[in-house]
Amino acid sequence: MRNATGPDPTATPDRDPDRLLPADRRTRSIARDLYDRVATAPIVSPHGHVPVDWLVRDEPFRDPAALLITHDHYITRLLHASGIDLADLGVGGSHADPRSVWRRVAEHWHLFAGTASGYWMEEALAGGFGIAESLHSASADHIYERVQTLLDTPGYRPRALFERFRIDVLATTDDPLDDLRGHAELARTPLPGRVLPTFRPDRYLDPSATGFRSNVHALLGITSAPATFAGYLQALEERRAHFIRHGAVSADHGVEEPYTVDLTPEEAESLFQAVLAETADASQVRDFRGHMLLQMARMSVDDGLVMTVHAGVLRNHSSPTLERFGPDTGHDIPVRTDFARGLRPLLERFGLVKGFHLVLFAVDESVYSREIAPLAGFYPSVFIGAPWWFLDAPDAMARFRSATTETAGFSRGSGFIDDTRAFLSIPARHDTARRADAGFLARLVAEGRLRLADAERIADDIVGPQPRRVFKL
Amino acid sequence: MRNATGPDPTATPDRDPDRLLPADRRTRSIARDLYDRVATAPIVSPHGHVPVDWLVRDEPFRDPAALLITHDHYITRLLHASGIDLADLGVGGSHADPRSVWRRVAEHWHLFAGTASGYWMEEALAGGFGIAESLHSASADHIYERVQTLLDTPGYRPRALFERFRIDVLATTDDPLDDLRGHAELARTPLPGRVLPTFRPDRYLDPSATGFRSNVHALLGITSAPATFAGYLQALEERRAHFIRHGAVSADHGVEEPYTVDLTPEEAESLFQAVLAETADASQVRDFRGHMLLQMARMSVDDGLVMTVHAGVLRNHSSPTLERFGPDTGHDIPVRTDFARGLRPLLERFGLVKGFHLVLFAVDESVYSREIAPLAGFYPSVFIGAPWWFLDAPDAMARFRSATTETAGFSRGSGFIDDTRAFLSIPARHDTARRADAGFLARLVAEGRLRLADAERIADDIVGPQPRRVFKL
Amino acid sequence: MRNATGPDPTATPDRDPDRLLPADRRTRSIARDLYDRVATAPIVSPHGHVPVDWLVRDEPFRDPAALLITHDHYITRLLHASGIDLADLGVGGSHADPRSVWRRVAEHWHLFAGTASGYWMEEALAGGFGIAESLHSASADHIYERVQTLLDTPGYRPRALFERFRIDVLATTDDPLDDLRGHAELARTPLPGRVLPTFRPDRYLDPSATGFRSNVHALLGITSAPATFAGYLQALEERRAHFIRHGAVSADHGVEEPYTVDLTPEEAESLFQAVLAETADASQVRDFRGHMLLQMARMSVDDGLVMTVHAGVLRNHSSPTLERFGPDTGHDIPVRTDFARGLRPLLERFGLVKGFHLVLFAVDESVYSREIAPLAGFYPSVFIGAPWWFLDAPDAMARFRSATTETAGFSRGSGFIDDTRAFLSIPARHDTARRADAGFLARLVAEGRLRLADAERIADDIVGPQPRRVFKL
Repeated sequence: MRNATGPDPTATPDRDPDRLLPADRRTRSIARDLYDRVATAPIVSPHGHVPVDWLVRDEPFRDPAALLITHDHYITRLLHASGIDLADLGVGGSHADPRSVWRRVAEHWHLFAGTASGYWMEEALAGGFGIAESLHSASADHIYERVQTLLDTPGYRPRALFERFRIDVLATTDDPLDDLRGHAELARTPLPGRVLPTFRPDRYLDPSATGFRSNVHALLGITSAPATFAGYLQALEERRAHFIRHGAVSADHGVEEPYTVDLTPEEAESLFQAVLAETADASQVRDFRGHMLLQMARMSVDDGLVMTVHAGVLRNHSSPTLERFGPDTGHDIPVRTDFARGLRPLLERFGLVKGFHLVLFAVDESVYSREIAPLAGFYPSVFIGAPWWFLDAPDAMARFRSATTETAGFSRGSGFIDDTRAFLSIPARHDTARRADAGFLARLVAEGRLRLADAERIADDIVGPQPRRVFKL
Repeated sequence: MRNATGPDPTATPDRDPDRLLPADRRTRSIARDLYDRVATAPIVSPHGHVPVDWLVRDEPFRDPAALLITHDHYITRLLHASGIDLADLGVGGSHADPRSVWRRVAEHWHLFAGTASGYWMEEALAGGFGIAESLHSASADHIYERVQTLLDTPGYRPRALFERFRIDVLATTDDPLDDLRGHAELARTPLPGRVLPTFRPDRYLDPSATGFRSNVHALLGITSAPATFAGYLQALEERRAHFIRHGAVSADHGVEEPYTVDLTPEEAESLFQAVLAETADASQVRDFRGHMLLQMARMSVDDGLVMTVHAGVLRNHSSPTLERFGPDTGHDIPVRTDFARGLRPLLERFGLVKGFHLVLFAVDESVYSREIAPLAGFYPSVFIGAPWWFLDAPDAMARFRSATTETAGFSRGSGFIDDTRAFLSIPARHDTARRADAGFLARLVAEGRLRLADAERIADDIVGPQPRRVFKL
Repeated sequence: MRNATGPDPTATPDRDPDRLLPADRRTRSIARDLYDRVATAPIVSPHGHVPVDWLVRDEPFRDPAALLITHDHYITRLLHASGIDLADLGVGGSHADPRSVWRRVAEHWHLFAGTASGYWMEEALAGGFGIAESLHSASADHIYERVQTLLDTPGYRPRALFERFRIDVLATTDDPLDDLRGHAELARTPLPGRVLPTFRPDRYLDPSATGFRSNVHALLGITSAPATFAGYLQALEERRAHFIRHGAVSADHGVEEPYTVDLTPEEAESLFQAVLAETADASQVRDFRGHMLLQMARMSVDDGLVMTVHAGVLRNHSSPTLERFGPDTGHDIPVRTDFARGLRPLLERFGLVKGFHLVLFAVDESVYSREIAPLAGFYPSVFIGAPWWFLDAPDAMARFRSATTETAGFSRGSGFIDDTRAFLSIPARHDTARRADAGFLARLVAEGRLRLADAERIADDIVGPQPRRVFKL
């Protein structure tokens, strides 16, 4: 189906309709039926990074490069690895001619064969813009122009795409001091789905974060809370309440290690003063961070925000790149992670509290069968976060399901999370997860391990009801 | 074949005869032939937790819930994760009406779709009780009654089941101070297979175990050994001798980390006095534990008991649950494990000793290819323990075989270990392993990596001769 | 094709022509076509351990045991695990009758079913010697004689095999003080491919290596550099220059942990004097090693040698075996590895330098998706080393591709590395990699994730152009 403003994004010209499904014929046939049940289900996206302003202002996307390349550090990082200067891709505010950026990508498009990013981009071009041609030097300009032409039409404005993508819920990620005016405005705008803020307080909790002291002082200032640990907690609570008033359902925490510590109020106060005075040593800084993660759980218990933890990433591995281009420019590297010991103090206190939801996202695959599935298979509060970041790709998703299902089944999962600011790739990412899950379920059916009726129920559940339950939507 | 007392447990009504076998047609056909060779082979179970008293007293199992639910922490943990109070499942001595427990499980049975526990339960109901119907609210009472009716017949008493399950060897797990009267009595009872005790001294070796001091004093008391380190070793040796006299072939060790330390007798004596006086710090406690694991190897070298090490589990993660329901209630969580460095002192001393057998069980999958297969592929004493606990499930078994075989082949494995006190699930667990191994072997044949004749020899070997060799049966 | 001196090594009598390819029919058919493109491509072997003298002297291999068993610690280790004394296999200079060694291997050949070593040996016997019969007690003598007869013919001398194997580049591994006369001589010899030395300085960089002090003094002596840190660096640089003059393209580093430290010249000087005086503690020794790894990167930046790091192996796990048989006798055991944090100081300084190539080889599979692919997907200098040692086998290769491709694609790989001194197994090892990659690519095509044309381009690239680019050949 085509309409005046562009192709139907669910039709993907020249794409294999069975793509990502298992090769085995019988398994594929089961998988296809499972996938067909959910292929066009509305998108529930309870964690992501789309800027709310895009939807508030609803202005046309500027150009194909800005939309599809420059902010997608999956794409720019692999080009960088192949010798292209990030400046030539417009990263970090560098000035680069968008058409040149696009050409550069097209010339190197063969690098993305077999990658998740390559797949998403091709899905977005085909599904979003009806482009069947593959990307290479000769097709670059032609494709650029076609995308640009469509971007200039009303049907490609953010809200039109939001509707066409069948997005039912979209969560953004926001700074605790954000006034959330955008969300308030959007709530008054007719839109077929909800856009919710997410409370993301990392830089107010980690003394080693850039600007920590001034962040804390700004937080205390905005809330008029006293410069004590109790005041600091109160300020955070007030901001969470502000988020909840604007529809937030979750608070997200990005940490290098999922480490928690319980402290007495006196210990916490003294540590708080030490980190503000910058007299705390590395171990005290770690303990402060660990205590604040535990306090965030305590607040979630109190105010009902779902707590999500994205753990195990060493941010900004390359200091020269950070200095030149800023954060989120492709050099965050996963490290090994210890959830079982690190989260124990938190779970000792809150793990059994009814209504507390803690979703654990990992980029260290070894924890899936070892720690995450066993934790989620016991604690009513713990949910298994979908494979994330480097792992939100078909093979990694299959490994994830294989590693967690036999211990914890399907009911302890979070449902898929796209975690992206690449707006155009959202349908492709959810579609990838749906195909991957259909393939996994089909294998269990083909191997006589799951009844077809159960597979159908599960396929239906994980694309909608499951994330709604887990994220209290 | 049916008989007066119940259905044939090897027939499984309405179960897919090819269940767990690979979907690919040609591979499945090879797998089916391999599986058929061993489907009805006697069960050799060299490590498990069935209470010997069940077989000694041979009383009918009380009710379906007590038999199949309450003591199976695989089942109760996932129900707990879904919000059910363990007390309502009769866990930890709680009083719960068995029929209500059963109904609760049936209502939530969909949670187990795709899990190992779900598969075993359905196998047990089908194979053990001829129940084809699936478990849900509407079928709960009917199934309960059918199981209860059968449990009340002579054919469902423990010894009858033992015979019907074709169990050839069943090892129990026992406290070092157990007088083993049950085993002695059973040895005089006509039974078609052997029931052997296993020496499990953890709580006498780990100073941080509950009651360690009184345990050690009880041990010294029963043997009249002096309260010195030498006396303590002598007492342990005496109890091992007692076990050997009652047929034990192995000593089992459950440790959070596979850490060993060699000490001089003087160092050991001084550490022993410190742990008894409770003046040892955390690092000394660790060293004492590590030295005792090495001493256990030394004793195995001397007395011939096979040493098994189940490593890498952080027990009783949730203190409130431990306090309310006791240990083994579903919140033991795996942690990452270092066998290569941790066992080096032990292997430096005993790794090359002829006749010493050390079987390593891991729940951290990353060690299979990295440490366990390389160790077992060099040290004549080291054997690769079958995938255990959270990993004794079809996909995990396939990953295990894939991770260990290319380095160490099949000959260095332990054979399957069911490690269970869920008596009714024993045939299902061994059958799962046989199917999984048939599938793995079939894939190697289909991929031209293994001759069919070799696959047949290996399939035959791993269900009987291999565990007999490794466990000196 | 047969010739006067022996069978064609690319023909393998009675071997399944589709061996190692996926079982699924459609996938296999795609895989077969991909494999056929590269089956006879010349071998590029940029890292290995064949002694250059074999090719210089071009003498016949002494006997089948010396050629195929004694020096292959993959083979001897598994026999050792099964109770055979390494002395009886001629390991470590032990005197053992080659025919007895061979018979012993044949008697135990069933142990190798399903292993990589078993596969290579059978490939070598079939492809290298036209032996279709399988190895067992009854065939042992017959096969031994046939191999011996052929080894005595001119067609089985090292250079003839080198030519028949279609080796285009073969890198050896050499001591920094080696005069490389062999390489010089070989360069003047007509040979259809190049033989290059590789600079491997471990024992001059690690203060805990046997003979470190005398190694350093020898190094300083040969170059007349002063006994200062600066002199030591200069001596290393001179030897690297010597290697480069003899054709070396890379410097290889085997380390237990990939740990790097940046130091000021003053700190380095003081540490250098401390390690030479043997007054450095364990942490200082570690820092010295870590600083030298960083210095090696600095030298690679300066002189252009590709830097390869083989990390994560605890060498000589069994001291009694080391004492009796020496190193490289089968008891090197992998340990868990931290590349992300350990290499950060090195990558902070040199990670973005144009022309610097750093190839990372791991034996801890958990780092593939977690650290190595993310690092190589950002840093232009970092390449993903092919699966190595215990992991250069079909299933492990599939896991490796699955773990790295979705993040980093195919372009960031090193190409296959055989890393062997088992000269006869070189064609089999490269063939294994080609089949495994064909199977992986075919799966992506069958699953609609990769265009066939891209798969063909990649299959062609990874067997030749890729290792040439990465190793600057």
